[in-house]
Amino acid sequence: MDTPKFTNTIKKKISFYEVDAIHMLWHGNYVKYLEDGREAFGEEFGLSYMSIFNNGYFAPIVDLHLKYKKTASMGDVLLVETTYVPTKSAKLMFDYTITRESDGATILKASSTQLFVTKDGRFEVTVPNFLREWREANNI
Amino acid sequence: MDTPKFTNTIKKKISFYEVDAIHMLWHGNYVKYLEDGREAFGEEFGLSYMSIFNNGYFAPIVDLHLKYKKTASMGDVLLVETTYVPTKSAKLMFDYTITRESDGATILKASSTQLFVTKDGRFEVTVPNFLREWREANNI
Amino acid sequence: MDTPKFTNTIKKKISFYEVDAIHMLWHGNYVKYLEDGREAFGEEFGLSYMSIFNNGYFAPIVDLHLKYKKTASMGDVLLVETTYVPTKSAKLMFDYTITRESDGATILKASSTQLFVTKDGRFEVTVPNFLREWREANNI
Amino acid sequence: MDTPKFTNTIKKKISFYEVDAIHMLWHGNYVKYLEDGREAFGEEFGLSYMSIFNNGYFAPIVDLHLKYKKTASMGDVLLVETTYVPTKSAKLMFDYTITRESDGATILKASSTQLFVTKDGRFEVTVPNFLREWREANNI
Repeated sequence: MDTPKFTNTIKKKISFYEVDAIHMLWHGNYVKYLEDGREAFGEEFGLSYMSIFNNGYFAPIVDLHLKYKKTASMGDVLLVETTYVPTKSAKLMFDYTITRESDGATILKASSTQLFVTKDGRFEVTVPNFLREWREANNI
Repeated sequence: MDTPKFTNTIKKKISFYEVDAIHMLWHGNYVKYLEDGREAFGEEFGLSYMSIFNNGYFAPIVDLHLKYKKTASMGDVLLVETTYVPTKSAKLMFDYTITRESDGATILKASSTQLFVTKDGRFEVTVPNFLREWREANNI
Repeated sequence: MDTPKFTNTIKKKISFYEVDAIHMLWHGNYVKYLEDGREAFGEEFGLSYMSIFNNGYFAPIVDLHLKYKKTASMGDVLLVETTYVPTKSAKLMFDYTITRESDGATILKASSTQLFVTKDGRFEVTVPNFLREWREANNI
Repeated sequence: MDTPKFTNTIKKKISFYEVDAIHMLWHGNYVKYLEDGREAFGEEFGLSYMSIFNNGYFAPIVDLHLKYKKTASMGDVLLVETTYVPTKSAKLMFDYTITRESDGATILKASSTQLFVTKDGRFEVTVPNFLREWREANNI
């Protein structure tokens, strides 16, 4: 049986204030698009910032890797696809693919890793209960 | 006797990621420069974000007026001058002048007004004690 | 005969990276929302950044006035209403009202003024032809 | 003979508007700090944005990898160390280490790769002349 693919896709239109002096989306702004994609995934599948917080945790990014394939310009509409990467560890991993809606060009590939921190600032080394239950419920 | 002029000046160099598609500092980024100027004033004169917070208050901006005089470009060094505007009310008011270091050109004039909110979210209609004492100590 | 009301409304959902240390939309980020609103107006009514540019002009902001009425939080959906303010002068003026979708609360009122600059950097003191024609065509 | 270490260090103080809802520097803002560090390196050693541009090229980021070690808070002063990574290829590579000034804690490690694009948008597969000369002059 195939592992189900947990994926969410959002649209983002590039604003004037997001492009740089050469009229392209400034490379740092993609981090915002990834966060919007990750949060939209979380809202669809029950792993949003607030649902993690209400279970007693923050989930800070500890690793972020961006591979820029093509540039994108003001007015381009981008599709941000966020995919959950299965793991048994006490962390969250996502892969991202950003494509341009008009021509399907791949603009960016990225991956992120998050760990869990309790509200008093301690890293959680075992899988939080809510996450274990979420994985079981989703068979992932 | 003259009222002393409570003024602080900081330098900000314009970064690549702050300019827009026509190579100029994007007009919204000046709001960051004003906040840096206001915070530097606060640190010099004892009205910083943290000193206000430690006295039990937030001081949200309720009015912000920006008048753009000239554009500024990547690499320009700007001087942000923040001046306290005396008032007897339960608010903070500042005037700002941003000039370019190289030629002294006036780039922006601005003014801001802040009110006081308690940590449980209530607007404070009377002058907070710490602010009354600060005004007396500074004869302003 | 009434002057027609030239208005456009967009939705913006507040992202995690847009809120500040007290969980509210940072006051400077509203400038981005206003620009998105103004550009959406421009695309609907034929005054977008690119249509102005293709007529030989930039239209830099020279005056921006923001009045903050209530704070807004991560996840709030805001409605940005942009209204054209009629004038016979060589400038563009807009009024803005931002409301929260969930309860209709007014969050921000703002106004902006733009002048016209030719591509070689000269301010245009007479109404550009394209704008005069646009006003006539729209009877505004 | 040792290869000289080409390194530049800048200071950045974290602003209020750069922290997120949990009072920490938002993880995407580090990309700005890295760009400021890289540009300061470029200005010291002759590889700035403008010097590359004046030689006929842009140098877009094609790979960016960030490893977050500790969080940093509003008011923290960070040291951004940018180090040139020698290569014979038609690209630029930098390593970065961000530490907190107060306690020397390592906050972030990162690396970036840039390629060269001509002004008409073509990727340059051979080492640009100006870069070959720069490498020879610096024996790197």
